[in-house]
Amino acid sequence: MAIKGVLRPGFIQIRILDREAALKHYVDILGLSVVSTEADGRIYLKAWDEFDRHSIILRPAETAGMDVMGFKVDSDASLQEFEQRIKDYGYAVDHVAPGEQPGVGRRIGVQLPSGHRIELYNEISLSPSGPPIHNPDIWPEPPKGMGVIRFDHALLYGPNIEEVLDFFTKVLDFSLTEKVHLPDGLLAIWLSCSTKAHDIAFVKHAEPGKFHHAAFQLEDWHAVGYAADLITRFNVSLDIGPTRHGVTRGQTIYFFDPSGNRNEVYAGGYSYYPDNPLRYWDDKELGKGIFYYERALNERFLTVVT
Amino acid sequence: MAIKGVLRPGFIQIRILDREAALKHYVDILGLSVVSTEADGRIYLKAWDEFDRHSIILRPAETAGMDVMGFKVDSDASLQEFEQRIKDYGYAVDHVAPGEQPGVGRRIGVQLPSGHRIELYNEISLSPSGPPIHNPDIWPEPPKGMGVIRFDHALLYGPNIEEVLDFFTKVLDFSLTEKVHLPDGLLAIWLSCSTKAHDIAFVKHAEPGKFHHAAFQLEDWHAVGYAADLITRFNVSLDIGPTRHGVTRGQTIYFFDPSGNRNEVYAGGYSYYPDNPLRYWDDKELGKGIFYYERALNERFLTVVT
Amino acid sequence: MAIKGVLRPGFIQIRILDREAALKHYVDILGLSVVSTEADGRIYLKAWDEFDRHSIILRPAETAGMDVMGFKVDSDASLQEFEQRIKDYGYAVDHVAPGEQPGVGRRIGVQLPSGHRIELYNEISLSPSGPPIHNPDIWPEPPKGMGVIRFDHALLYGPNIEEVLDFFTKVLDFSLTEKVHLPDGLLAIWLSCSTKAHDIAFVKHAEPGKFHHAAFQLEDWHAVGYAADLITRFNVSLDIGPTRHGVTRGQTIYFFDPSGNRNEVYAGGYSYYPDNPLRYWDDKELGKGIFYYERALNERFLTVVT
Amino acid sequence: MAIKGVLRPGFIQIRILDREAALKHYVDILGLSVVSTEADGRIYLKAWDEFDRHSIILRPAETAGMDVMGFKVDSDASLQEFEQRIKDYGYAVDHVAPGEQPGVGRRIGVQLPSGHRIELYNEISLSPSGPPIHNPDIWPEPPKGMGVIRFDHALLYGPNIEEVLDFFTKVLDFSLTEKVHLPDGLLAIWLSCSTKAHDIAFVKHAEPGKFHHAAFQLEDWHAVGYAADLITRFNVSLDIGPTRHGVTRGQTIYFFDPSGNRNEVYAGGYSYYPDNPLRYWDDKELGKGIFYYERALNERFLTVVT
Repeated sequence: MAIKGVLRPGFIQIRILDREAALKHYVDILGLSVVSTEADGRIYLKAWDEFDRHSIILRPAETAGMDVMGFKVDSDASLQEFEQRIKDYGYAVDHVAPGEQPGVGRRIGVQLPSGHRIELYNEISLSPSGPPIHNPDIWPEPPKGMGVIRFDHALLYGPNIEEVLDFFTKVLDFSLTEKVHLPDGLLAIWLSCSTKAHDIAFVKHAEPGKFHHAAFQLEDWHAVGYAADLITRFNVSLDIGPTRHGVTRGQTIYFFDPSGNRNEVYAGGYSYYPDNPLRYWDDKELGKGIFYYERALNERFLTVVT
Repeated sequence: MAIKGVLRPGFIQIRILDREAALKHYVDILGLSVVSTEADGRIYLKAWDEFDRHSIILRPAETAGMDVMGFKVDSDASLQEFEQRIKDYGYAVDHVAPGEQPGVGRRIGVQLPSGHRIELYNEISLSPSGPPIHNPDIWPEPPKGMGVIRFDHALLYGPNIEEVLDFFTKVLDFSLTEKVHLPDGLLAIWLSCSTKAHDIAFVKHAEPGKFHHAAFQLEDWHAVGYAADLITRFNVSLDIGPTRHGVTRGQTIYFFDPSGNRNEVYAGGYSYYPDNPLRYWDDKELGKGIFYYERALNERFLTVVT
Repeated sequence: MAIKGVLRPGFIQIRILDREAALKHYVDILGLSVVSTEADGRIYLKAWDEFDRHSIILRPAETAGMDVMGFKVDSDASLQEFEQRIKDYGYAVDHVAPGEQPGVGRRIGVQLPSGHRIELYNEISLSPSGPPIHNPDIWPEPPKGMGVIRFDHALLYGPNIEEVLDFFTKVLDFSLTEKVHLPDGLLAIWLSCSTKAHDIAFVKHAEPGKFHHAAFQLEDWHAVGYAADLITRFNVSLDIGPTRHGVTRGQTIYFFDPSGNRNEVYAGGYSYYPDNPLRYWDDKELGKGIFYYERALNERFLTVVT
Repeated sequence: MAIKGVLRPGFIQIRILDREAALKHYVDILGLSVVSTEADGRIYLKAWDEFDRHSIILRPAETAGMDVMGFKVDSDASLQEFEQRIKDYGYAVDHVAPGEQPGVGRRIGVQLPSGHRIELYNEISLSPSGPPIHNPDIWPEPPKGMGVIRFDHALLYGPNIEEVLDFFTKVLDFSLTEKVHLPDGLLAIWLSCSTKAHDIAFVKHAEPGKFHHAAFQLEDWHAVGYAADLITRFNVSLDIGPTRHGVTRGQTIYFFDPSGNRNEVYAGGYSYYPDNPLRYWDDKELGKGIFYYERALNERFLTVVT
């Protein structure tokens, strides 16, 4: 095993305003499947190509946004080590008991200076409807809707992203893959714990704890176009795309769930290795970095968050 | 940095019979660029999306085949640790002096029980024609020919693959992602040091040290089709494809370089994490595992190696 | 209206051995929808992007094969004119009463010297589930299965194809778009009544009246790959592909329905205009003409017909 | 030959301000090739898949815009018949001598009530660099740049489009494939002389004789994405896209040549037959008709013309 410590974004818990509308969106349009609905109202979902029990949790609430993003680590020993490293770094660690999410073992939580909560955990049960492994077909059934492959990453908005960068790279062993540096300071950072161009990203924002988008992986540019077709056909609220990011080189489309949470589905982008040079952007080409085709930021991208 | 130890396949040295024909093939058809030709006749090439100085080395020789495959590790400390671990495992380690390949630091070598030589190294200079990093365009110039993105993996044929498996997983921290197990024993193994479905693979074969293919990554299925168009248009010898593998789910086409070495260009396939269950194949569906569409092995795949 | 006379292949009636298996194949895999099943056992189907009531008719029978292929003409006046021209050419014309197929007006029939029956007709009712026309979405619902767009063309095997060529070009105003001419004579012809590279094609074959395949249009090469995925996943019998034809340049995959009738789904290919030069192939490159990637004919393509 | 009368848009003559910049744009970016530059300064170009000598004519001038669009007809007899029909309709016909464009025979011209000039002609020499026809490869060389397949259609802005519609359908036998009808009258019409969703289109506009865009065909959605990559990489001025039209269902991107003339490259869209029902749009969904993903018109599309 050459990927150690934090493996990947494992789950995200998103607040939704309307259960029926949310299910129609995440199941019929994105193609996630419902794993379970629990007594506390939370709905657990997964993408077809994920082995773990669930990756998306929808929590009915009064306001939209993200409750928490969880990262799976490679072992309980790693979990213990990260707890110590976080404490040594000076941040408080709290504990979530096994079973708070069905099938998930103990989790440790930390509040980021950007106002977001993340958690680490190692144990989660395997899904009975994960990818087949014995003489496996490429899928058990053809993926539905957009056919999203996995929960991939999130972009979060909040203050103190220099501190966030320091924490993720020093304590959690993430790499900084790209950054935007404006004359008045660091605007945005993309962080990887794998060969992905980003597993989590942050944009500087005055209000803490804001949620920009959760992203799901698609197969290729064709799938991005098909996602766009579905978005219009089923009257999903479009943000922007199909387009490409300069940052990550991903091919992408943004849209909103019925509660106003932004989703991204994307494909492509480069593979990142920790010996790769840092890619960096400045104010001269920031528009191209965010939207490679339009070469200009739209106001909505910078201001509409949940 | 959450990818530790062995980062990736860094180079492969392939023997060629005809310099001009090889260059036409690897440069004009695959789209690699020549980095340098050295006094000893070796030609160094790289793919457009690679940061390191070179990844493919063509050595004029009397017979085709592979001399060595090199893996880049994350640090000199790792290099030292791997040297000790290899020795502790009971294998001999030899040393290649810095500069034996231009721009490459010291390497350590080991002979596998399958008859192949692999090397580990940490230092290699960055290419001046690597991907741009300051306000980067998606490519400096549109990729040429097939536009291969990187040297990706190799498939090697030889005996004692159970031992090879033990060595790669115990000593080099690779994961076994898929295997084929026939009634008379292990036939094939796919090994990963990253989130790729394979960084190296082995098939059991009586004759040691044989080379099945070197693989290069393409963007998507469209690029596989375009590769097929180029293969016919420019009279490249086709092996099989466009098709898909059941193993890795990659979309693929195989063909031969003018010296008879097999090449693969492929796209897609799943992302692998070390907590994923092992995928395994048996004799009932082996054909589907290798060629998902044809659902049958062709004799050439099992017997033609260099 | 600048397309006059024969508009297009309008329907094909195919004999099937097993009703349930055929429906599963044509509906679940290809994505056709059932229009009606009539008292005589015939099942009428259509593709999602066709306006006319039906285009595929499956007739339960003891042997597989094609009963008849029907061409829609632009007006009843044209139908009368073609009847006269056929008679003037010396072929017998028979008549099929309106309603023999539900929704279809009167048809005229002619026996080709290749042993096949074709029909011409002008009237057919519009399908209530055809493409929307008032502020239309791109589809009413996302296409199912392979998502075939339309019945596109057929390839027929039989003797006397020089006479067939003469008839189609002189009497029905088709254009010869491509031909294969071997030292011992004409082997194959592709005929167009539109801007398609072929609306019908013939290969010389000793036995008259044989059916090689019915072809359905796909959107693009991505859809050809997805068709291949479905073919393996659902255990459809593959003939060959994904590949490309040199003739027509179409990207293609061939497979068999459960009764042994060959199907093709294809995409791409050039647009043909009647002022285009004839493309012609000889024995030196026939393999490349039929299967551009493999550059060799397989025996099955030349001999397996129904 | 079942396509009769007007075959297709054969050429378009566009005014450019800067010869060098225009060549860089149309040759390096779109992938057209230069056929000849004549003494009067006009530059003749063609796309790789066109048989005729040329299809694009760039005329250096003081202002951008379109001089004339030419339609090829199937025979000199048709040319004579159309001349009579135009005169009978009450429009003046003028004559352009053979050789006014190199390789092109006599042309007849007519001024449309929208302020545009169109011409009809039958004779044009074949290009020596047209598609191969004897054992043809799919292309002689891989297409360059965007790899546009052909000049496809134009969209013109001007007054009196009801009259234009009447003329094209009654005199030139075009079909109206789609229209936009607002409460205050007809806004836009799409006209076909083939199986294309449009060979020419008009939008109501106060100023006569304005040029909205010339469109070139691409292979598929992948090519639209690649076109977008090239547009940004080489600093071409983007209008909008990649997106899709509701009208025609084409996948598209709009951009400007260095003189300010709008270009479109597009792929896909439905096949049209003259028995297809008219598709019609109203003010409720006009935005979706023009830009299917954005579902809103941008001001630029309605006002920026040359």
